[in-house]
Amino acid sequence: MILTVTLNAALDATWSVDSLRPRTSHRVDTAQERAGGKGINVARVLVALGRDPVATGLVGGATGRRIRDGLRNARIRNAFLEVIGESRRTLAVVSRDDGDATVFNGRGPFVTAPEWHLFRQHFAALAAGARVVVLSGSTPPGLPADAYAQLIRTASAAGAHTVLDTSGPALLQALAARPDVIKPNTEEITAATGCEDLPRAAAALRALGARTVVASAGADGLHAVTPEGTWRAAPPEQLSGNPTGAGDACVAAIAAGLEAGSAWPDILRTAVALSAAAVPCPVAGEVDAAVYHRLLTRVSVEKVPAAPADAGPE
Amino acid sequence: MILTVTLNAALDATWSVDSLRPRTSHRVDTAQERAGGKGINVARVLVALGRDPVATGLVGGATGRRIRDGLRNARIRNAFLEVIGESRRTLAVVSRDDGDATVFNGRGPFVTAPEWHLFRQHFAALAAGARVVVLSGSTPPGLPADAYAQLIRTASAAGAHTVLDTSGPALLQALAARPDVIKPNTEEITAATGCEDLPRAAAALRALGARTVVASAGADGLHAVTPEGTWRAAPPEQLSGNPTGAGDACVAAIAAGLEAGSAWPDILRTAVALSAAAVPCPVAGEVDAAVYHRLLTRVSVEKVPAAPADAGPE
Repeated sequence: MILTVTLNAALDATWSVDSLRPRTSHRVDTAQERAGGKGINVARVLVALGRDPVATGLVGGATGRRIRDGLRNARIRNAFLEVIGESRRTLAVVSRDDGDATVFNGRGPFVTAPEWHLFRQHFAALAAGARVVVLSGSTPPGLPADAYAQLIRTASAAGAHTVLDTSGPALLQALAARPDVIKPNTEEITAATGCEDLPRAAAALRALGARTVVASAGADGLHAVTPEGTWRAAPPEQLSGNPTGAGDACVAAIAAGLEAGSAWPDILRTAVALSAAAVPCPVAGEVDAAVYHRLLTRVSVEKVPAAPADAGPE
Repeated sequence: MILTVTLNAALDATWSVDSLRPRTSHRVDTAQERAGGKGINVARVLVALGRDPVATGLVGGATGRRIRDGLRNARIRNAFLEVIGESRRTLAVVSRDDGDATVFNGRGPFVTAPEWHLFRQHFAALAAGARVVVLSGSTPPGLPADAYAQLIRTASAAGAHTVLDTSGPALLQALAARPDVIKPNTEEITAATGCEDLPRAAAALRALGARTVVASAGADGLHAVTPEGTWRAAPPEQLSGNPTGAGDACVAAIAAGLEAGSAWPDILRTAVALSAAAVPCPVAGEVDAAVYHRLLTRVSVEKVPAAPADAGPE
């Protein structure tokens, strides 16, 4: 079983305006609101792949109830815990004139220490039945700085593979718990390491504790540094659209591959094709099955020498 | 009893960002959400004045339930009808760097013909017990163009005073039903008549059917053309703050004055003081009682000759 963790679940809305003009009033067209947060979007992609993931994390308030309704509609098994605070909303304001999105992300509910204590016990029970645990996205206010590290240690002790997709201090704090896989994009990797050279930055993150670093470089594909070797994987063509869901699709492919016991070249091939298949879709968590199957056999996967500096964390 | 009508009730949210930069992502701080829509804000001010208004209109969906919760919290008597569609949200994104607001207004639920038919019956029953009916704001999709005209005719036939605060085609369509009072601001009056001269524009609106036109000119006060004469009323000082609630406070004062049978100079004095008392408050529907009482006796009210063109609608 794959368990996805979304500590800061959200209700995602997209509003259309003719043109965003600061300091004016806009008449907006609102679309359907969806349950969101990166872990929930990973679970959506896993459902599209025919898996049956369990989604956990924290939700609260009226917004939290709508997130839970959204999970039911998406046929995702719901193991979220309800907290007293109100779950956050995110809003993408899309301009019809240029298609560009302006994004607003709420911080999320304040989670109290007793709530976090209860969630850790709940998570331990779920992780005991999981083969892969995916931890994605930001953390809500109130959580300890090492919240992800705590969960990774619990999951690893239970024998689960751990895949972490977060950024900034939450990422750096979690590395000490030695996650099996982290999936930073180029921006996140530069922010975390101060280094723009992907192989060197990946080596630095492995030295801090990550066993495998799968760095995503947008349309250039993936650079993966694993204990078994280093690979580059690239899509055969460029797709235009909305790249926001590509990272979540990539993480879903990694989780599915780890659950199946696949080799890294096969995992990366799937991850590149599935990431590309997310780009034509308007919202995160969706993939275009036809694009996925068309690209899958044409992804290039190439073994490259490890960076000299990379001795890995072992 | 004063009945306020909000056909397109909303859940109003205010989000703070450091600075609004289109095409980027923002971390937002969210404040409490409130039941809104101009009629509900008028009812809030009436409660602050010690009145006990009844609020009606249309709400729907999960957002509608939160609007109803908000009415209960504000101690406003709730006579809204629930429709199948989802009530709209409005969002003000306030930049901390300059205090400016960028506003997004949803269109509202699609209201079906059977729902409107039921609402008209519900409204007729409520209007029969009302001395003043206030009709404020935009109308949701699906309503007939003459929706306000229908309600005004029903209320007038029941013997209630009618006060209309809307704009654009909804305003023009409603004039044929001869509302007792309309309260356009300078922008709305220019948009409706194509005339920037307030006395001439007011005369034009009276010729179309409005019995009294109370034109609000922001910090310059009110210009009122009534069957009993024409008055200008102005505040004794300028207040800085948020003018969005001033119009709703003005309408509340007019409604309270009509209910009490006050003379127009007294109504206008109260309306100017109450509008000004809304400006220091951060959200619409609130008034600063100390400012109101400080200004009330110092408002200037001056009778002016009627515009030569203004023969009124009689």
